[in-house]
Amino acid sequence: MKEYPVFNAILNRRSIRDYADEQIKDEEINQILEAGRWAPSAKNLQPWRFIIMKDAQRIEDLCQFTKYANILRKSKVNILIFLDKNFQGDRIKSIQSIGACIQNILLAAHELEIGTCWIGEIVNRHEKVEKFLNLPGNLELMALITLGKMPQEKKESRRIPLEELIIKE
Amino acid sequence: MKEYPVFNAILNRRSIRDYADEQIKDEEINQILEAGRWAPSAKNLQPWRFIIMKDAQRIEDLCQFTKYANILRKSKVNILIFLDKNFQGDRIKSIQSIGACIQNILLAAHELEIGTCWIGEIVNRHEKVEKFLNLPGNLELMALITLGKMPQEKKESRRIPLEELIIKE
Repeated sequence: MKEYPVFNAILNRRSIRDYADEQIKDEEINQILEAGRWAPSAKNLQPWRFIIMKDAQRIEDLCQFTKYANILRKSKVNILIFLDKNFQGDRIKSIQSIGACIQNILLAAHELEIGTCWIGEIVNRHEKVEKFLNLPGNLELMALITLGKMPQEKKESRRIPLEELIIKE
Repeated sequence: MKEYPVFNAILNRRSIRDYADEQIKDEEINQILEAGRWAPSAKNLQPWRFIIMKDAQRIEDLCQFTKYANILRKSKVNILIFLDKNFQGDRIKSIQSIGACIQNILLAAHELEIGTCWIGEIVNRHEKVEKFLNLPGNLELMALITLGKMPQEKKESRRIPLEELIIKE
């Protein structure tokens, strides 16, 4: 039987909100961001920019901007994803590109047995986060990804059946 | 040496704009859409909807809405991706979710040696396409993906170096 490691990774990846007490290596972070960087983007504009947070106090500082502070505190690394509006073409397509970049990050981490949680809720206060980080106006917070080594137990998840997603012409 | 099939797929996937004259099987289309369906989405709202076009005349009908008609004509299957606005939470996050879904589709196709091209340009005339397809108002065209078996030659592509993407705090 043929194996489909990419397909299997896509189906088995889950949001992980609890993490083992184990550090993530710099080369693992690098591999994960490499994956993000190789996402396709509208006109190959590559509008994604990253901040890597590894310092526990720095992560604690971010907790004020999200109700998911408990996930941030348990994680070992946070990756903040920004849209560089100077590299933005059509806004909808640029935001789709960011989504593709994020999915690459989640899949590459999964392959390294690093759990991730895509936190979009913090984006509700993106202006405050950008001000807190002293960022120039061209960088717009799009998501925060928490990372940590996988704990033991696996998670279940659900999706709408494919037949309900396909529209008959 | 450890192998990273997911990471390698992410790095080796390219936009393919020319296709072999070979049909795509229904089970391949199904596997590709299964991958799309298992993308993460804001609040697990799963806002993606799909139209599968296999009929050459029907694909020809779509050509009037894009300057990339030559790619559509060479492809064997088109997948149109829609945002179901009835399943939309925050719009930015929903559009990111669509991007994650598209990336899963591109990666799953790559694993099946099916080439894809993510066509965003047709979205510039999304209202006309939606009208042509007689779709209800809740479905907004987000992208068209052309699919066809890989031709022989491989493509080069470029990305901005990672060090230029990481913002130092």
